[in-house]
Amino acid sequence: MRNIMLTIEYEGTAYGGWQKQKNALSIQGAIEEAIFKITGEKANLTASGRTDAGVHALGQVANFKTSTKIPIERISKAINAKLPENIGIIEAKEVSLDFHARYNAKRKTYQYRILNSDYKRPIYRNFTYYVPHPLDFDQMKKDAMSLIGEHDFKGFMSSGSSVKSTIRKIYGVDLEKKEDIIILEIEGNGFLYNMVRIIVGTLIDIGKGKINMPLREIVASGDRSKGGHTAPSTGLFLKKVYYNLDTPGSMY
Amino acid sequence: MRNIMLTIEYEGTAYGGWQKQKNALSIQGAIEEAIFKITGEKANLTASGRTDAGVHALGQVANFKTSTKIPIERISKAINAKLPENIGIIEAKEVSLDFHARYNAKRKTYQYRILNSDYKRPIYRNFTYYVPHPLDFDQMKKDAMSLIGEHDFKGFMSSGSSVKSTIRKIYGVDLEKKEDIIILEIEGNGFLYNMVRIIVGTLIDIGKGKINMPLREIVASGDRSKGGHTAPSTGLFLKKVYYNLDTPGSMY
Repeated sequence: MRNIMLTIEYEGTAYGGWQKQKNALSIQGAIEEAIFKITGEKANLTASGRTDAGVHALGQVANFKTSTKIPIERISKAINAKLPENIGIIEAKEVSLDFHARYNAKRKTYQYRILNSDYKRPIYRNFTYYVPHPLDFDQMKKDAMSLIGEHDFKGFMSSGSSVKSTIRKIYGVDLEKKEDIIILEIEGNGFLYNMVRIIVGTLIDIGKGKINMPLREIVASGDRSKGGHTAPSTGLFLKKVYYNLDTPGSMY
Repeated sequence: MRNIMLTIEYEGTAYGGWQKQKNALSIQGAIEEAIFKITGEKANLTASGRTDAGVHALGQVANFKTSTKIPIERISKAINAKLPENIGIIEAKEVSLDFHARYNAKRKTYQYRILNSDYKRPIYRNFTYYVPHPLDFDQMKKDAMSLIGEHDFKGFMSSGSSVKSTIRKIYGVDLEKKEDIIILEIEGNGFLYNMVRIIVGTLIDIGKGKINMPLREIVASGDRSKGGHTAPSTGLFLKKVYYNLDTPGSMY
């Protein structure tokens, strides 16, 4: 038995999300189908985490066990040949049998793209959140940077999710503006359900002047109602998942 | 009667091109339909030039005559409300009755995006031309820059087009590489049918080392067979069309 780790890019627009489901296409389902076509095996693909409908990935990571004899250097090409154009395997790597894409994920980076212009940009419609109102970028950046460190994000989570702890550590935040696109990048040891989208919605409401409380205080309050709206999935990208694969002495 | 000039952005992926046609959706048809919905008039939209199936625009320009009383500042919003999401009016301007988007166009800028990476990028699939082979960027840039000036591009035109003259003046060329995307920008007083796509295909064949003749000599030969392939429509954007509207003393 072999354990294969895939790094995956996808446009989530046409999908009901990562996870297999009854009445919608899923990224997981599409890739498992492609694996079945090349190996004849019903693979069980485990991702670093689910992504919602419309969310994209530049570097989602997933693994599956297989007894196929296809050499590792041919696997990504073979799977890609069977995948629809909106999903692509960037890399396939053979890893130890106990590697688990979710349990062993150490850090993740998300990116969120906001289109802040006078008019909608059709070519960005599936990849940004369109906000026509003027935004105070400097204020948003100051508040975004204040998230670095360890916080209890219990107010920045959509209901329905059950987690042991709501404390997460943010290693880095960046907010950049390139022409009419504002890009947030946020790296942390984990993210609660909808946490990035609530951070973005709150930052936008701060940028509009609709919310005046500093973001750090809103987080500290633990009160969802003090935060802003949940930004839509279209602007969200899972950019990178980090493992300790390359650190000598540690397993992941 | 009024004459309205529209600046338009669109993703061409889902369309058979700018021009109205029987068996495919067209950008022109979609906008004329939206105009009909808001004015009740069958408008006749004249563009600066046609774009082919799959070609995008960041700033296509078109004009139409109308007797509607809708104030100019409300027209783009009204049309946008009736347009599909992959087309958007950026600006609507009232111009003199003799303004003609094609005849009065003085200059145009096209952009072409090449994805040059080891693997396909699903999120760029409709907006780039994927070239997996290593490319000699410096050589491509040198050849691209050599196009500045006036040349007879008769070898850089797809057959079937009839034009009075095949001489065109190139005012500026730029080739930039940002991560794995190479972007060509080219500005000229006009472009023959498929001229930009043949320039790009030839530059890529030069970058691959498949063509060794300098681009300027290939152009000077007037021989289509000496040039490279015609790059696909997916990477092509009509970026801007220039008129002399704002020059005092001149009409357009």
